[in-house]
Amino acid sequence: MKGKFISLEGGEGSGKSTAIDFIQRWLESHKVPFIMTREPGGTPFSEEIRQLVLSSREEKVNDTAELLLMFAARAQHVAEKIKPAIDQGTWVVSDRFIDSSYVYQGDARGGSTQILDQLTEWAVGDYHPDATLLLDVPVDVGQQRVLQRKYQDRLDKESSLFHQKVRDGFLERARLNPHRIRIIDASLPLEDVIAQIEKQLEALVQSWSGGI
Amino acid sequence: MKGKFISLEGGEGSGKSTAIDFIQRWLESHKVPFIMTREPGGTPFSEEIRQLVLSSREEKVNDTAELLLMFAARAQHVAEKIKPAIDQGTWVVSDRFIDSSYVYQGDARGGSTQILDQLTEWAVGDYHPDATLLLDVPVDVGQQRVLQRKYQDRLDKESSLFHQKVRDGFLERARLNPHRIRIIDASLPLEDVIAQIEKQLEALVQSWSGGI
Ligand SMILES: Nc1ncnc2c1ncn2[C@@H]1O[C@H](COP(=O)(O)OP(=O)(O)OP(=O)(O)O)[C@@H](O)[C@H]1O
Ligand SMILES: Nc1ncnc2c1ncn2[C@@H]1O[C@H](COP(=O)(O)OP(=O)(O)OP(=O)(O)O)[C@@H](O)[C@H]1O
Ligand SMILES: [Mg+2]
Ligand SMILES: [Mg+2]
Repeated sequence: MKGKFISLEGGEGSGKSTAIDFIQRWLESHKVPFIMTREPGGTPFSEEIRQLVLSSREEKVNDTAELLLMFAARAQHVAEKIKPAIDQGTWVVSDRFIDSSYVYQGDARGGSTQILDQLTEWAVGDYHPDATLLLDVPVDVGQQRVLQRKYQDRLDKESSLFHQKVRDGFLERARLNPHRIRIIDASLPLEDVIAQIEKQLEALVQSWSGGI
Repeated sequence: MKGKFISLEGGEGSGKSTAIDFIQRWLESHKVPFIMTREPGGTPFSEEIRQLVLSSREEKVNDTAELLLMFAARAQHVAEKIKPAIDQGTWVVSDRFIDSSYVYQGDARGGSTQILDQLTEWAVGDYHPDATLLLDVPVDVGQQRVLQRKYQDRLDKESSLFHQKVRDGFLERARLNPHRIRIIDASLPLEDVIAQIEKQLEALVQSWSGGI
């Protein structure tokens, strides 16, 4: 049987990486074979592309170039890591996936949906997430959390308006894909966030197999 | 008036870089404002992408990923270097451009023409070469020339069959674009190659403006 594919989405500082730690423990305790991964990145080559696209630089990065780099990393990630795992029955949990592209390169940077759809078809094929947990927080809450970090990448440094477009974009995608994307209120204290995630995981597993 | 855009194409060791040295001297002596550039690469960021895509590595590079990286580098190159130059009346001479993608990623690797057309539209827009000099040599001649170099990149190391597909692909593109692509017999001694290039440059300049 094929493995399930779960992606985590949300703006900067929404708590994706923190949530992933919990999901990892949950899957271990339920004896589900899984791998954790992230985007952009996920394989050594894709991580090199990630570094290239996220590092701050003097040269203006052209929007189309940024978009194509993101999808180059994704094509490699899907072909060399996600697809082989899912095909052999291993679950995949990814810190960001396709929705981030639609929201960051599409809604926030103005990239066209038609281009994103076409690139997604080439890079992802049939390997779309079965479920997506969207960690939703107000922009200022996310930014305050991220400010505590030393290192800020090229996208962290974008304006509040940019991050507001990101939040709105994610919520709009959730509205359009209500079955796949489940919204988690991530402005709550960590234990409440984790409780919501656990509830969603249990519901998902139930819907997929009537239990693991 | 807009600058003219000339690309040099041909397989490994066909003599593109050597030809470019001559073209540079020719343009200087004719007092034409120009820049020289190359693909993949041409801007600092695109050169970083070039390094990523050409360096030999253990991880298998997915064909779609390679294709998208090439076009990411090209989108950046066109937007940040080629377009600004041409728009201000500066000529551009590029060591490889779009035909290499059709031939290497298309004919040799099997990438679809429809995908290449779509990526070209996004990355290149209206900034296609006005003329292309195709340096044509039999595969074994090119390979012998390249063997004298110390450093072989990931594409140099492909099989003879691969390089034969590249040569055939270039000749087919010349057949389909007879007005833009001019074939240079690059198996001849260097002085004869240069004489052919000079004749073509004079003819091009004549056709573009009735003289410089
Ligand atoms: N529910 C929460 N309440 C308070 N702080 C939180 C909560 N969730 C995470 N944090 C803290 O906020 C910071 C950002 O969290 P985390 O790194 O998980 O976010 P992220 O979504 O992965 O961010 P990025 O998109 O930048 O990777 C961390 O310091 C984390 O400990
Ligand atoms: N007409 C020629 N006759 C003999 N040797 C040549 C000729 N043209 C170039 N060479 C030599 O062949 C080698 C390859 O030439 P060059 O580097 O110009 O090829 P290239 O097309 O730029 O290759 P690459 O695609 O790998 O960049 C060089 O050592 C060059 O001096
Ligand atoms: Mg994170
Ligand atoms: Mg060369």
